[in-house]
Amino acid sequence: MTHVLITGADGFIGRALTRRLAAAGVALHGRTVQRLTLCDLRLSEAPSAPHVTHVAGSVADPEVVRRATADQPDIVFHLASVPSGQSEADFEQGLSVNVQGLIGLLDTLRRQGHRPTVVFTSSIAVFGAPLPEHIDDDTPLRPTLSYGAHKQMAEIFIADLTRRGALSGRSVRLPGIVARPPSPTGALSAFSSELIRALAAGQPYTCPVSADATLWLLSLQGCVDNLLHAAAPQLALPPGLTAWTLPAQRLRVGQLVQAFEQRRPGCSQQLTFAPDATLEAQFGRLPPLDTTAAQAAGFCHDGDVGTLVERAVQAIAT
Amino acid sequence: MTHVLITGADGFIGRALTRRLAAAGVALHGRTVQRLTLCDLRLSEAPSAPHVTHVAGSVADPEVVRRATADQPDIVFHLASVPSGQSEADFEQGLSVNVQGLIGLLDTLRRQGHRPTVVFTSSIAVFGAPLPEHIDDDTPLRPTLSYGAHKQMAEIFIADLTRRGALSGRSVRLPGIVARPPSPTGALSAFSSELIRALAAGQPYTCPVSADATLWLLSLQGCVDNLLHAAAPQLALPPGLTAWTLPAQRLRVGQLVQAFEQRRPGCSQQLTFAPDATLEAQFGRLPPLDTTAAQAAGFCHDGDVGTLVERAVQAIAT
Repeated sequence: MTHVLITGADGFIGRALTRRLAAAGVALHGRTVQRLTLCDLRLSEAPSAPHVTHVAGSVADPEVVRRATADQPDIVFHLASVPSGQSEADFEQGLSVNVQGLIGLLDTLRRQGHRPTVVFTSSIAVFGAPLPEHIDDDTPLRPTLSYGAHKQMAEIFIADLTRRGALSGRSVRLPGIVARPPSPTGALSAFSSELIRALAAGQPYTCPVSADATLWLLSLQGCVDNLLHAAAPQLALPPGLTAWTLPAQRLRVGQLVQAFEQRRPGCSQQLTFAPDATLEAQFGRLPPLDTTAAQAAGFCHDGDVGTLVERAVQAIAT
Repeated sequence: MTHVLITGADGFIGRALTRRLAAAGVALHGRTVQRLTLCDLRLSEAPSAPHVTHVAGSVADPEVVRRATADQPDIVFHLASVPSGQSEADFEQGLSVNVQGLIGLLDTLRRQGHRPTVVFTSSIAVFGAPLPEHIDDDTPLRPTLSYGAHKQMAEIFIADLTRRGALSGRSVRLPGIVARPPSPTGALSAFSSELIRALAAGQPYTCPVSADATLWLLSLQGCVDNLLHAAAPQLALPPGLTAWTLPAQRLRVGQLVQAFEQRRPGCSQQLTFAPDATLEAQFGRLPPLDTTAAQAAGFCHDGDVGTLVERAVQAIAT
């Protein structure tokens, strides 16, 4: 039996992860999830069940952290984060959640001495922009947004706590997860989800990157599969790595459009392109991605563009 | 005219830096040091003068940070740090000063909007151990002690604040600075200073690394010269770097002993070797060091082993 804590449980990924873990009697790596603690600013849509505890508030608040960790979780999915656009616009808020909140949470877990498994969602933002011509496990991290800098600081902190035996950290760098719902303050790379939602609905959309733009994409289902896998008991990062860069399909926007057209001809008729040079340079020129370490550890992407598209459309519906 | 703040002003390097900047009318990069604020846990030996302010307390204490920064310093030398051995033994204390104290100080400076120059003493501990066969500006950072992890987090944080224009950060990674005074809780690499003090005094010493051990050394005077240079107005880190690794002479312990023997024959007669394999692996196998970026920016080491030895001996006397 195991006790799971999810922070950021009301977010796009957190809600999907919660759905997978909230059912009574569900098992994670062979152990029944006996208790599930959900933490987020709001938990309006979170499931209610005797074994599910809600802790509403920010992980930047030590009292919220105290309540969320009161029963010494065995497995922590730390997803709570201020996204990239918001972290760049409001430095203070990004710092308080993405760095200070994370340090507070993990140091609380360290002091409990219970050595939990901690799955942390880092981001490909740690690579910065412009990206080198090829990305692999040895690519130096050179974040160019505060969000990426904070995620890299978090990876280092978790790796050090893991080295010390205070917890078992598993940081994974998320690529673009699709298709996210609309968000007023969300990620700067939100256009990939906007494009997919428009294609799924056959609605008008002006794409801010060109058809030749290349993206790294993973479906919501693929993302949750990988997060659950990251909690596997024996998993450990290879020496020198502070995170696994998750496998993703590298697709041209044109390929994505073509896959939607095969699924439902005509769905892209109202699609136009008005590339924004800055956006395309930062988020639309993603080079070939070699994720050898993650694949060796059993992480995987959606397999092919058709599966990705089906799963991305499912993510919209949920 | 300029206002300088030194944190860690009572430390080995802080006291030497203070001596250089405390004299009335002294200039730094063409501007008179009109005010000097010294901050450390204790300031027992700090100079008293009308233009010198003492702030006693820890940078981990927000009230101390508030007082130290109250008059909006133009140049900050942030030296305050819990050393490597102590950070490894007392995680909480290292975290509170090396990460949380640093974040608190720099975020306070950011909020002031005054855009100060911040010189931060990082450490070669960011490279971790065992070291690769060659170190240069592209060597990946893989800290293997909490001290190194915290220093790397600090470098990233400062680089991001610099990118945002909140301050002008100049992080420099210190090699072994010699000769440090004896310290009960000091750096794990303290043996290099112990060896030099013993040779300078012709006293008995059992060296915990072999005569073939290789060290990266810089004298106290060379260190302070480089810290003052780091505050030069136009200096900026090259893209992708979060710190300059300071130039250091790579010397075998045997070379160092020989230089002392040339200076005063017989001074090593009471020297014996009892190498500790762990210590030698972590601190006594330092590979060739290429500090191209630092040299291009005008940083330099002591020049030759004779000068290093003379300056190291001077550092003992001060």
